[in-house]
Amino acid sequence: MYTYEELLEKFRASLEKESFSGKPADLYEPIHYMMTLGGKRLRPVLLLMACDAFGGDTDAAMPAAVAIEIFHNFTLVHDDIMDGAPIRRGKDTIWHIWGEDTAILAGDTMFAIAFDYLLRVDHPRNKDLLKAFTKMAMKVCEGQQFDMNFESEEHTSIPDYLAMIRLKTAVLLATSLEMGAILAGAGEEDIKNIFAFGINIGLAFQLKDDLLDVFGQVDIFGKMPGGDILSDKKTFLLLKALTIADEKDKKVIEQWFGDNTSDPEQKIMDITAIYSKLNIDKIAGTEMERHFERAIYHLDLVGLPEDKKAELESLAEKMMYRTH
Amino acid sequence: MYTYEELLEKFRASLEKESFSGKPADLYEPIHYMMTLGGKRLRPVLLLMACDAFGGDTDAAMPAAVAIEIFHNFTLVHDDIMDGAPIRRGKDTIWHIWGEDTAILAGDTMFAIAFDYLLRVDHPRNKDLLKAFTKMAMKVCEGQQFDMNFESEEHTSIPDYLAMIRLKTAVLLATSLEMGAILAGAGEEDIKNIFAFGINIGLAFQLKDDLLDVFGQVDIFGKMPGGDILSDKKTFLLLKALTIADEKDKKVIEQWFGDNTSDPEQKIMDITAIYSKLNIDKIAGTEMERHFERAIYHLDLVGLPEDKKAELESLAEKMMYRTH
Repeated sequence: MYTYEELLEKFRASLEKESFSGKPADLYEPIHYMMTLGGKRLRPVLLLMACDAFGGDTDAAMPAAVAIEIFHNFTLVHDDIMDGAPIRRGKDTIWHIWGEDTAILAGDTMFAIAFDYLLRVDHPRNKDLLKAFTKMAMKVCEGQQFDMNFESEEHTSIPDYLAMIRLKTAVLLATSLEMGAILAGAGEEDIKNIFAFGINIGLAFQLKDDLLDVFGQVDIFGKMPGGDILSDKKTFLLLKALTIADEKDKKVIEQWFGDNTSDPEQKIMDITAIYSKLNIDKIAGTEMERHFERAIYHLDLVGLPEDKKAELESLAEKMMYRTH
Repeated sequence: MYTYEELLEKFRASLEKESFSGKPADLYEPIHYMMTLGGKRLRPVLLLMACDAFGGDTDAAMPAAVAIEIFHNFTLVHDDIMDGAPIRRGKDTIWHIWGEDTAILAGDTMFAIAFDYLLRVDHPRNKDLLKAFTKMAMKVCEGQQFDMNFESEEHTSIPDYLAMIRLKTAVLLATSLEMGAILAGAGEEDIKNIFAFGINIGLAFQLKDDLLDVFGQVDIFGKMPGGDILSDKKTFLLLKALTIADEKDKKVIEQWFGDNTSDPEQKIMDITAIYSKLNIDKIAGTEMERHFERAIYHLDLVGLPEDKKAELESLAEKMMYRTH
């Protein structure tokens, strides 16, 4: 069995061999740029880890891992257009360099290329793999639309928020694990449990992201805390604060909402102070742990010896206790 | 065997049964809107006709026909954003009603839904079908990028233009026929020839479109002639005129290029007069017929009795001799 680090290295080496080139150069250059920008490569490694845990051949699974990473990057390319985000992973985004039209088209092409890689997998259960992937793609799009809707909605409930991040973030992590399990020939019950493990890890992972944005350390790209606060993002922290704050604090939050120019530093300080007073960090931490524990519950149900599951459990823990 | 009209009716009836609904409604409403806007439904009917000609089961092929039509409409949704086109088929375009973000996402979702339909086909050669579809999707994106590049290019050659419409338009028609043939269990040589038939019909079809835009009758949506001239679209007509015009006429064309405000009617009249003087309509007609004849040459090579191919030949003729 491989460790997480070994599979990450294996994936990176495989990805480096892919050229992502073609004609016209104007279309493939942005695709190559995006695919070599870096990133955690978490999703393809989850696929390989699940495949390895169930005794599958990680080399044979590699094109599916590449497909998952291309798909993930495709969603980032289109999300960056919708968010008007000029920077990703410390570098300019595709729409910001090449314009929106090419960014739309590069994303579309990446979606097609993802299927192209998936079709390179030679496996008797290829159709199950494609079905899981396609279902996931639809759900991720639905999640992104829910996320956009929240921006203009008057009131977003916490269950609505969790349902959104389930679709937008957790389903992709869960499907990566599911596809690895399918490729290793896992049984139906095990596939269901590894999927449920992934969903709950994904929910916990996003809550951790929400927390780190406010209470995290400055990350390696020099990203400062408070980005979500400045952009009025409806995170778990904000929604929870609006639910439990008294009228005075609620008014402070609402007054800052939509104000991104007058005094950004004061805005971050005011909102963070309210979060701290209301113990929002602890509440979000508890919610995160609730999903983490549910994830471990499902991992325990997977019918594999403990040592086969140790790497997955240890990665999940690392994801929970990271500082950026 | 079915006639073209019967298969069109069959397809329309099948498509009507599909609801294209889901959550969030903000995402599926535009998809439903687009899929019920109408249109010629040419591509799915070509798929069914090829399937029928080779003795396949058109009912079993129906999900693949739906997939092709969804894919085609996905490309229109994204193209309309890139072109800034407010009207399609006489109705408002998706980005124009729901905004660009939702139009990007609705298109992405339609791409995924197309694969979802394709995966409903239960066929031993399902993987060949998916491979043909995925390869086509990549080529269509490449064609769209070439088309966008032409807009800012100083000089576009006629071979470059034909290579672009081959990718952007002809490959989709050809792949529709190819998929129908695969589903009917046709042999490799026959599949190659039906594909080549489709490519050449596609090229002829686009040249006909270019011609009709200038010399056609007012269509059922009241679309007036000259739209391509007004938008400075680099069609076969314009590129040919620039190649053979004398310095004086070339100057007139170049002076109007980029001028869309001063006097649109005069612009259309001036350019059309030059086209007529240079016999561009006859030259384009000859080019169109060259591809049409090549199409028929490949159809003749398909190893089927004449009566099995008669519907395809007659449809190709109708496409060439239509007046709008």
